[in-house]
Amino acid sequence: MILTGHQLLGSRESAASSDTFVARNLALGADLETVFHEATESEIDDAVSLAAAAFDSFRRLLPEHRADFLEAIAEEVLALGDELLLRASAETAHPLPRCAAERDRVLTHTRQFAGWIREGSWVDARIDRGNPQRQPLPKPDVRSLLEPVGPVAVFGASNFPIAISVLGTDTISAFAAGCPVVVKAHPAHPGTCEIAARAIQRAAVRTRMPEGVFSLIQGRSHETGTRLVQHPGIAAAAFTGSLAGGRALFDIANARPQPIPFYAEMGSINPVFLLPGALQSRAEGIAQGFVAALTAGVGQFCTNPGLVLGLESEEWRRFRSLASEKVAGYAPATMLHSGIHGAYSAGIADRLARAGLELVGQSGDPASAERGEAAAYLFATTQEGLLADPTLFEELFGPVSTLVSCSDPGDFIKVAERLEGSLSATLHGTEEDLLNHRELIEVLRRKVGRLIFNGYPVGLEICHSIHHGGPYPATTHSHFTSIGTRAMHRFVRPVCYQDWPDALLPMELQNANPRGILRILDGERTRDEA
Amino acid sequence: MILTGHQLLGSRESAASSDTFVARNLALGADLETVFHEATESEIDDAVSLAAAAFDSFRRLLPEHRADFLEAIAEEVLALGDELLLRASAETAHPLPRCAAERDRVLTHTRQFAGWIREGSWVDARIDRGNPQRQPLPKPDVRSLLEPVGPVAVFGASNFPIAISVLGTDTISAFAAGCPVVVKAHPAHPGTCEIAARAIQRAAVRTRMPEGVFSLIQGRSHETGTRLVQHPGIAAAAFTGSLAGGRALFDIANARPQPIPFYAEMGSINPVFLLPGALQSRAEGIAQGFVAALTAGVGQFCTNPGLVLGLESEEWRRFRSLASEKVAGYAPATMLHSGIHGAYSAGIADRLARAGLELVGQSGDPASAERGEAAAYLFATTQEGLLADPTLFEELFGPVSTLVSCSDPGDFIKVAERLEGSLSATLHGTEEDLLNHRELIEVLRRKVGRLIFNGYPVGLEICHSIHHGGPYPATTHSHFTSIGTRAMHRFVRPVCYQDWPDALLPMELQNANPRGILRILDGERTRDEA
Repeated sequence: MILTGHQLLGSRESAASSDTFVARNLALGADLETVFHEATESEIDDAVSLAAAAFDSFRRLLPEHRADFLEAIAEEVLALGDELLLRASAETAHPLPRCAAERDRVLTHTRQFAGWIREGSWVDARIDRGNPQRQPLPKPDVRSLLEPVGPVAVFGASNFPIAISVLGTDTISAFAAGCPVVVKAHPAHPGTCEIAARAIQRAAVRTRMPEGVFSLIQGRSHETGTRLVQHPGIAAAAFTGSLAGGRALFDIANARPQPIPFYAEMGSINPVFLLPGALQSRAEGIAQGFVAALTAGVGQFCTNPGLVLGLESEEWRRFRSLASEKVAGYAPATMLHSGIHGAYSAGIADRLARAGLELVGQSGDPASAERGEAAAYLFATTQEGLLADPTLFEELFGPVSTLVSCSDPGDFIKVAERLEGSLSATLHGTEEDLLNHRELIEVLRRKVGRLIFNGYPVGLEICHSIHHGGPYPATTHSHFTSIGTRAMHRFVRPVCYQDWPDALLPMELQNANPRGILRILDGERTRDEA
Repeated sequence: MILTGHQLLGSRESAASSDTFVARNLALGADLETVFHEATESEIDDAVSLAAAAFDSFRRLLPEHRADFLEAIAEEVLALGDELLLRASAETAHPLPRCAAERDRVLTHTRQFAGWIREGSWVDARIDRGNPQRQPLPKPDVRSLLEPVGPVAVFGASNFPIAISVLGTDTISAFAAGCPVVVKAHPAHPGTCEIAARAIQRAAVRTRMPEGVFSLIQGRSHETGTRLVQHPGIAAAAFTGSLAGGRALFDIANARPQPIPFYAEMGSINPVFLLPGALQSRAEGIAQGFVAALTAGVGQFCTNPGLVLGLESEEWRRFRSLASEKVAGYAPATMLHSGIHGAYSAGIADRLARAGLELVGQSGDPASAERGEAAAYLFATTQEGLLADPTLFEELFGPVSTLVSCSDPGDFIKVAERLEGSLSATLHGTEEDLLNHRELIEVLRRKVGRLIFNGYPVGLEICHSIHHGGPYPATTHSHFTSIGTRAMHRFVRPVCYQDWPDALLPMELQNANPRGILRILDGERTRDEA
């Protein structure tokens, strides 16, 4: 495939601006081929106008037809062969097996959404039958279901160039819901975005989707993203990235004359609590699992474990020294892009200079700044030291974590109460440990989106139950998730039909229940006819 | 009951401020007894701190126990006898039967939520069972359900002193979800709020709820509301009122260091389309129903029909003249408070002065400004006149509507495309009319929360299917409703448990399904054990 670096506006290409940029292979220190054109205001307007024009016909398609589209996307992604993986690897420094795993994840979530909308009960169809004879007032017939909100803007993540970018759950769940999508390509992997976008385009043509169902715009300036979020034709936006970037766009979305929901997933600290029973029996295994989780993907995961807490004891000291050893064995590797590398390097320099923070482990080999490499670091402090330094509660994106020594279980609770919203919290222990730390668990239930027992937060299972969200600053709205089938809820709203003729109702609300879905009929959950 | 005008902070009373105010009987032009104290910053802090302290124990209660609390509220409200109705009537000028109907509505929604949480399937419990043998990676066991977000702030509506105020769906749905509530009393009916609050207090004591589950603060200044929304202990807020007030608090909620969702329902224009078949056969009945809906509650409904559109024809002219006649027969009545009366009077004066807007009907009797009365008004214009004057798309709260003459069905669509988000749209017609106006319906589906056929938007049916929401400016977030059982979704978020021991899971996620709820088990909806 020859990449053009153009905006892909429905079936049309455009490159109106002479403001251009290139992607970079950071490991090789070399620019990659293809010049990408910054999207102009008029190109953005074209993309959104096409999406708006496509909306009515796209949402009216039978769910089976939209499912065909999703499955065709999966096929077209597979048909890309290695090209997608090679470009993603060159643009992000992810090894090829990681890129292949990301592709597998795209296939999984895309097919999962296809199956989910084929089954169809997700629309939350509700029927309350009328009664003209009711006194003192007749009872109307009231029915409702979830319908798509309109064109959705998507901003993918830098760290998952395939699985949480153009082909991520944001795009796929919006399509599943019936919303056209305009993706703003990530400027660190624009070529991967273009390749993925062309697969979606082919799937759209093959399955006869309306032209504007999908567009891709390129850009590296803040203005381009801002313009997309401010466009009056955009009904909702989804974003994965940094707190600073997410909050800035969230504020812009809220300040619009007509505010729109801006769903940002902005990473978090993901604390890990090592309870006594676990340290006694499995210190070595936990140290190994923890360091593997910490350094996976060069530590560039939203769910990276940034704080590890244990009770001061011989076992805890043993865990610390085992973890430090394993960190020493971690070979520095190239980060996603120079911006992230710069922020990581500055953050490490800052931590090295902090009083009360002890460096207890680091990669044995030096990191090459030229190749944008990150070494792994392990710091240590006490509960008091942590509480005295709020910056330690903030995510530093990369393979770094802080081990926190606590004197007693009350210290765990003190720290937990100070946590900001987090995507996850992990506890290692025996079941008895959990019983002994019920209060800690209650605090964590208020603070996080996912509680993990004897596991590690990185590596999300793609399934109906998964929740990838949490209170701010993990996300901008804790009711929603960016991964899993609940992700569709971001892009739908209830629409209610009162005394509407049966034949003209959406199929899901018709008396005969032609789609055979589970509905709430006069308050009962049933697949029966109304 | 002797009213104190104090803040009700859990079981304690407080009146620290000497800044006081009274309620007014606008119809009599007289102040009502009881001096109300503006809540101080420290009292607001006490209310929220009590709520935060109550949260962990309140949400851990069995749903049956929370349902008992809700049913006790209904009983205590009934036990108030006429006192609640008399005070509400005096403070709002609503006739007693209307106040009694509002109380009935409170009983209905409170018992409905009690039943809904007893049944329990609303928590959206999902289970994906693990598989340690899966290759290349073991599959974790992942489960999730909806859990409460934390203390909720509630700002009731001026126009429903009983049904959408202290005892409204906002408070009751938050309790049902497991969230403590701090209500900011409406300054136009503070006594009604105190009486209702004392009923909740008694129910809380009777059913042994934690003390801080409910507090009421009084206040008429913007600062008091702002302080409540800005308090770091508040996790979400719900509001019913004006666009200006709702937007101001929405902006404050978003600007917090930790933004919280601010769910505002801010009224709308609620267009009514009279299609040819309806006008031919039922012009008189529609005119009667329309004017009844327009003037109900002195036009002070969020769902008041503010625009009526018809195709220029003899039947349309007949409808216009019939509606004008009926409006002439409407006796002016006292509005809710002087602020609303002033805004209505100014709005009418503005419309009377507008070129291109013809006054075609008004109450025959004059309105008494002294008693805060509103006369009904009917204006007329053409589609061109409407599109040329954007202010006509804005809600003017009171018994006023604009009749819009259109030349052809394309005009309907032009107008519909220009509509802002609205709570409802109504169509009168035959089924054939609907088929002939499919494009219009498609546009309206994008714009409104509820589509009504051959009915009127005022008078919401309290049921599972109802949706009282819509795109901005009808609400601040179109995914949510402020009426109906879906209203709980505003106050919950998913929490996910990974590889969690069965015995320590929330009951709804345990293998044996002890609550017998419907769950999503490995993607299938079932009440089976896991």
